[in-house]
Amino acid sequence: MRATVMHNTGDVRIENVPDSVIQKPTDAIIRVTRACICGSDLWPYNLGPAAGGQRMGHEAIGIVEEIGSDVHRVRKGQVVIMPFANSDGTCMFCEEGLPTACVHLNFFGNGGDMEGAQAEALRIPNADGTLYPLDVDADDPLMPSLLTLSDVMGTGHHAAVAARVARGHTVAVVGDGAVGLCGVIAAKRLGAEQIIIMGRHADRIALAKEFGATDVVSERDDAAVQRIMELTGGFGAHSVLECVGTEQSIATSMAIARPGGAVGRVGVPHYQVVPTADQMFFKNISVAGGPAPSRAYIAELLPDIMEGRIDPGRVFDRTVGLDGVPDGYRAMNAREALKVMVRP
Amino acid sequence: MRATVMHNTGDVRIENVPDSVIQKPTDAIIRVTRACICGSDLWPYNLGPAAGGQRMGHEAIGIVEEIGSDVHRVRKGQVVIMPFANSDGTCMFCEEGLPTACVHLNFFGNGGDMEGAQAEALRIPNADGTLYPLDVDADDPLMPSLLTLSDVMGTGHHAAVAARVARGHTVAVVGDGAVGLCGVIAAKRLGAEQIIIMGRHADRIALAKEFGATDVVSERDDAAVQRIMELTGGFGAHSVLECVGTEQSIATSMAIARPGGAVGRVGVPHYQVVPTADQMFFKNISVAGGPAPSRAYIAELLPDIMEGRIDPGRVFDRTVGLDGVPDGYRAMNAREALKVMVRP
Repeated sequence: MRATVMHNTGDVRIENVPDSVIQKPTDAIIRVTRACICGSDLWPYNLGPAAGGQRMGHEAIGIVEEIGSDVHRVRKGQVVIMPFANSDGTCMFCEEGLPTACVHLNFFGNGGDMEGAQAEALRIPNADGTLYPLDVDADDPLMPSLLTLSDVMGTGHHAAVAARVARGHTVAVVGDGAVGLCGVIAAKRLGAEQIIIMGRHADRIALAKEFGATDVVSERDDAAVQRIMELTGGFGAHSVLECVGTEQSIATSMAIARPGGAVGRVGVPHYQVVPTADQMFFKNISVAGGPAPSRAYIAELLPDIMEGRIDPGRVFDRTVGLDGVPDGYRAMNAREALKVMVRP
Repeated sequence: MRATVMHNTGDVRIENVPDSVIQKPTDAIIRVTRACICGSDLWPYNLGPAAGGQRMGHEAIGIVEEIGSDVHRVRKGQVVIMPFANSDGTCMFCEEGLPTACVHLNFFGNGGDMEGAQAEALRIPNADGTLYPLDVDADDPLMPSLLTLSDVMGTGHHAAVAARVARGHTVAVVGDGAVGLCGVIAAKRLGAEQIIIMGRHADRIALAKEFGATDVVSERDDAAVQRIMELTGGFGAHSVLECVGTEQSIATSMAIARPGGAVGRVGVPHYQVVPTADQMFFKNISVAGGPAPSRAYIAELLPDIMEGRIDPGRVFDRTVGLDGVPDGYRAMNAREALKVMVRP
């Protein structure tokens, strides 16, 4: 079968790899019908993948092709969402709604023994806990939006939850990537009154506005902070969604959060420490977030997609086949594409 | 009148200073009947006070001696709690229950123009919003516990609230100072099932147990983390109360927090960055806290003191007159005393 393998910085190839096979009775194999490229895939693209080649991709919808003897809740032929993390669905953390702390946690396409979703098929450990069966056809027009439940929409929602977005709140979204845009959707959905998007890309800003952003801040650094203060009566935002993952973005988040406010951070942190510890303290800001428990959020978000209230699939602005994946990485890295969907 | 002035590291003196006077119509003057020395007073004691001498003390109970022409909710002769921060009681933040973000916020005894409470009297700006009138005699036997509502009990409670302590939770308290011990009271009061105190002082540990601590960890650093993991089934604590304020204590807090757990930090941070940003992220830990809105917590905590359900005044293990204040600093700094009460 064919799969995406990253060999070096900027070196993504489609290769023939051994067919995925059931290794444990709790495994399933899915044939991938939709996958995509994630902003977080650009970190290894720029900083280097795992040694020996990294199988890429952690977001998918697929059709169950085979199940192990101990898989009971997922059936062959079902259309399923594959969230980016593997979880058993039965441990204490899964039961508490935090499958990304599952005692069997592992991330797809992480360079270890977990296969990648930018492929014709892949093995799903703990299939019963991990996969979320859908009652739709594999070519349903809602597929792009359903695909976002595997990661990006769940992650935007997690940012909003961690930032304690509530009805009437002022929300600032740091980052105009696909996660930030899904953060706008999530903030609007949770009742935010003012939603400020920080960004400079005309097409992304336009989409953010359609998703519910009320204000745009295109300044950088201190000027951006000052502008947000002006937009929020001098106090800052109740909720800040940090959707980038750099030291600068978390520092900006802290600066624009209102006293008593909250920062929800979902950008995978490429920094070792949270800066401005004293500002965070004296403003009584809470900081929360991490890998989104996307699997646990599907039940809440799915009806809004099925009934047309939200349409996060609009973050996909390019679709490629497997052969187009390497160029998809290039385009996302060059910011030519916002988010690339893959149809293997 | 006589007041405490810190002139240099380790140099605390009782001096004659000009009598406190009403400066603005919203001021009041209180005669201090009880004050105390705070762990945070030891920071300037060791690192140096404000230039020119710092008037010390930010916790008091007193009797209103004089009021400005625009003070309406506080009357002469009333016994009042003076929380450590000045707040107007009417701004958006005060109304939201965060008076330590008041637009008129200032801290007593901070080295600026705010007078100190380790004195015969002091001026209270925004008296209507700041002071909390009590319906007790100035010599009520509950005075020690009532005095803790000015800061230390409110701060311990804030740590517990920020750490989202809830019924049945496992709580770890980092720091066995007076704030940590009040954190134990607060955790117990909010329904925690297991309360682990980290400390090594026999008398403090004994008091922590009387306040509700169920386990004691006297190891340091990695050994302490390992011990707490053993005590919590290998997962860590739901809620960690960080009551110290050093980089080591916040790093330890992050290490012993359970995935999805929360760290409430109230130790004034003497560090610039929050370490282990990646651990915090991948465990989905929330970190919150800051200067406690003690004024806002009084209404909730007061009945428990008046009706004998909590007795935080037991943190005071020494009482001095004004002349004894310098030795009180020495004793607290040497850890001979847990917390010193001052009766001017």
